[in-house]
Amino acid sequence: MSPSIPDPSPELLRRAAAVRRAATALSQLNDDARRQALHAMADALEAEADRIVAANQEDLEAAATDGLAPALVARLKLDAAKLAGAIAGVRQVADLSDPIGRRQLHTELDQGLVLERVSVPLGVVGVIFEARPDAVMQIAALAIRSGNGAILKGGREASRSCQAILNALQQGLVNSAVSPDVLDLLTTRQESLALLKLDGLVDLIIPRGSNALVRFIQDNTRIPVLGHADGICHLYVDAAADPAQALRVALDSKTQYPAACNAMETLLVHEAIAPTFLPQAIDTFAAAGVELRGDPAACRFGITLEATEDDWRTEYSDLVLSVKLVPDLEAALEHIRQYGSRHTDAICTTDPVAADRFLAAVDSAGVYLNCSTRFADGFRYGFGAEVGISTQTLPPRGPVGLEGLVTYRYRLRGDGHIASDYSSGMRHFLHHPLPL
Amino acid sequence: MSPSIPDPSPELLRRAAAVRRAATALSQLNDDARRQALHAMADALEAEADRIVAANQEDLEAAATDGLAPALVARLKLDAAKLAGAIAGVRQVADLSDPIGRRQLHTELDQGLVLERVSVPLGVVGVIFEARPDAVMQIAALAIRSGNGAILKGGREASRSCQAILNALQQGLVNSAVSPDVLDLLTTRQESLALLKLDGLVDLIIPRGSNALVRFIQDNTRIPVLGHADGICHLYVDAAADPAQALRVALDSKTQYPAACNAMETLLVHEAIAPTFLPQAIDTFAAAGVELRGDPAACRFGITLEATEDDWRTEYSDLVLSVKLVPDLEAALEHIRQYGSRHTDAICTTDPVAADRFLAAVDSAGVYLNCSTRFADGFRYGFGAEVGISTQTLPPRGPVGLEGLVTYRYRLRGDGHIASDYSSGMRHFLHHPLPL
Repeated sequence: MSPSIPDPSPELLRRAAAVRRAATALSQLNDDARRQALHAMADALEAEADRIVAANQEDLEAAATDGLAPALVARLKLDAAKLAGAIAGVRQVADLSDPIGRRQLHTELDQGLVLERVSVPLGVVGVIFEARPDAVMQIAALAIRSGNGAILKGGREASRSCQAILNALQQGLVNSAVSPDVLDLLTTRQESLALLKLDGLVDLIIPRGSNALVRFIQDNTRIPVLGHADGICHLYVDAAADPAQALRVALDSKTQYPAACNAMETLLVHEAIAPTFLPQAIDTFAAAGVELRGDPAACRFGITLEATEDDWRTEYSDLVLSVKLVPDLEAALEHIRQYGSRHTDAICTTDPVAADRFLAAVDSAGVYLNCSTRFADGFRYGFGAEVGISTQTLPPRGPVGLEGLVTYRYRLRGDGHIASDYSSGMRHFLHHPLPL
Repeated sequence: MSPSIPDPSPELLRRAAAVRRAATALSQLNDDARRQALHAMADALEAEADRIVAANQEDLEAAATDGLAPALVARLKLDAAKLAGAIAGVRQVADLSDPIGRRQLHTELDQGLVLERVSVPLGVVGVIFEARPDAVMQIAALAIRSGNGAILKGGREASRSCQAILNALQQGLVNSAVSPDVLDLLTTRQESLALLKLDGLVDLIIPRGSNALVRFIQDNTRIPVLGHADGICHLYVDAAADPAQALRVALDSKTQYPAACNAMETLLVHEAIAPTFLPQAIDTFAAAGVELRGDPAACRFGITLEATEDDWRTEYSDLVLSVKLVPDLEAALEHIRQYGSRHTDAICTTDPVAADRFLAAVDSAGVYLNCSTRFADGFRYGFGAEVGISTQTLPPRGPVGLEGLVTYRYRLRGDGHIASDYSSGMRHFLHHPLPL
């Protein structure tokens, strides 16, 4: 842990405790009350739309003065249309089915001694994001829908927008059963660093931003982090691939949205299919504006730039693709093991044996057959919302929907049952499964 | 992170990579092969029983020379009977149903594009335990049953016993489809510290030992840790409790095995029931050899030792109990929120409203009604085995069986499907659930 992380100030501790208290009350509310709170938030955002857009305008003007990069300005911008879309998103989250109170296990341990495991909110989530002010609305909606409090920290550039949005959300909550205290917004860099030290008050940190931001947070907190630093996704074109299909999948995986974490960074090609696949792939990628960097074998087919060792470890997030020829499937698996980030990796093949081997042996959150890596996404998976994509090994892994914001609790109901009756042999466990 | 944690030596990195490689191969084996490997391990342990008991005898002699504490000697001791019990345990783990390859989700995203989520092994677990050499057998069995490799580090006192056990286990694996390389034993303190830095090679660390050991590990690794530092469990005797039943439950919760993490440390008593409950409770606990420490109100009923603020935060792990009177259920909830460790907390009451409020509002891994806190245990819950008990908020929480050693992976099978067809509106997702 970096020594530069400050301890939380008494004021921050007091505020975090207030969020936690409000979240505890929120966790006791039923589905309808939480749903209604989201609609009240959406109503208030609509009522405050002009004020929010005006605050965003001020942020944009300050950004122009500061010479903010155009990509950041685009993310910062929140006009009436974008705001309306975000408000519709809040109402969509309201309509998702309740993730709380689901019984996951139900066992009669003995007569009159019944165990159940039910889903419950996590508690309080800390969310750190760069520029995008619309993240405030999305995260607040997801957190409250699932019964959690949220401590938010946006980028400095978006401070006026975030504050205006938070004001509206809290005004909305006044017209609901949820205390406005369940949401808090941190404004200083000192506070956002100290957030990393709020173990016991914050149960999960969700970073939304650059790989560097995520890695910094992972390295500087004991609180679990939902996210991923790298998305180095591979597509392996097997000897038995359909070349036209493989090219279509490869092109989509690279170019459909190259800045996304689920875009392909390295194309692995079986040397037996290279003569039929690669020349056309080189032309197609060139036409799409993709810069190719090949290993020596791939360069013999016409790639002009040679890949270095660094290329296999790089998430370009851009129209750049490294290409490597492999002698067989096992060599492709070994390359992915060595350089992959366990995010999403795909194979194109018509050989069921090769397909099964790849799907069983690649230990990534997503392993795909004959389809684009770009499908790795909570909405596309049908989760209705996405909290983030996790590349850690333990669950939740891959695209995470509302289930990433809930945990579970065991409830055991007895009638004077004591453990010594079982250790003495006087009574015996039944462990009889009951319907969920 | 403490600056005293050494970086892994090249030799340790090489060994950990060997475990990981062997674990990857193991993860591809089917249920029968993993089951058979456990029986081969059990066979080898039986064949090597004399050698193992002799090695343990040497450890015991060294412990006597070093003046090891009697409690540690008791845990270190592995005689023929204890060994036979541990071998039977290995065969029981073999008989548990397969935690791998379970389909948890199955969705047709679109015609010909099918998503599934299946359980897979974690990879490699690191296990650090004190004294007890039988932990080697149990953990090796659990890890291999669930398709994982294991890097083990036992206490220095048990080094000869652990080495003899590991030799036997690896000899057993020679007669199986599993490489003996899936198990490795660390022997030096330097190595066990460096284990904490094997991110990327080790997926989960399981500490088995004192609270101080667990806390040290949690504070000094980025690898997820399955365990709990504190077990401060409460029993609240409500105004509407059956006094005789409450006393029976309280006595079992405290005395059935006071060293366990799920033993009660604090008894909260509603002041309305104190006159009928507490005098008899004081006598009963005294007769059982339990030292009581009361708040001023409890002391008025005859408890002679006054509890200090520290008592409410202390896991005695001994025949000591702190007792506090509370004016109502809400005060009990507030005490548990403030001082509890979110392990297991219980209420005794005949009032269904109070019961429901307690079970909904206490955010601990286990919340119990009218039964002993000592039921918080993987075997008692019917999991067949226990990897550990977790008091972190995120799953896995509470007693964790084999499911704590598995994760999941998404598999997506298509036929040339690309994301741009959906973003262009040419195709639409079905998100049609399929049978599991």
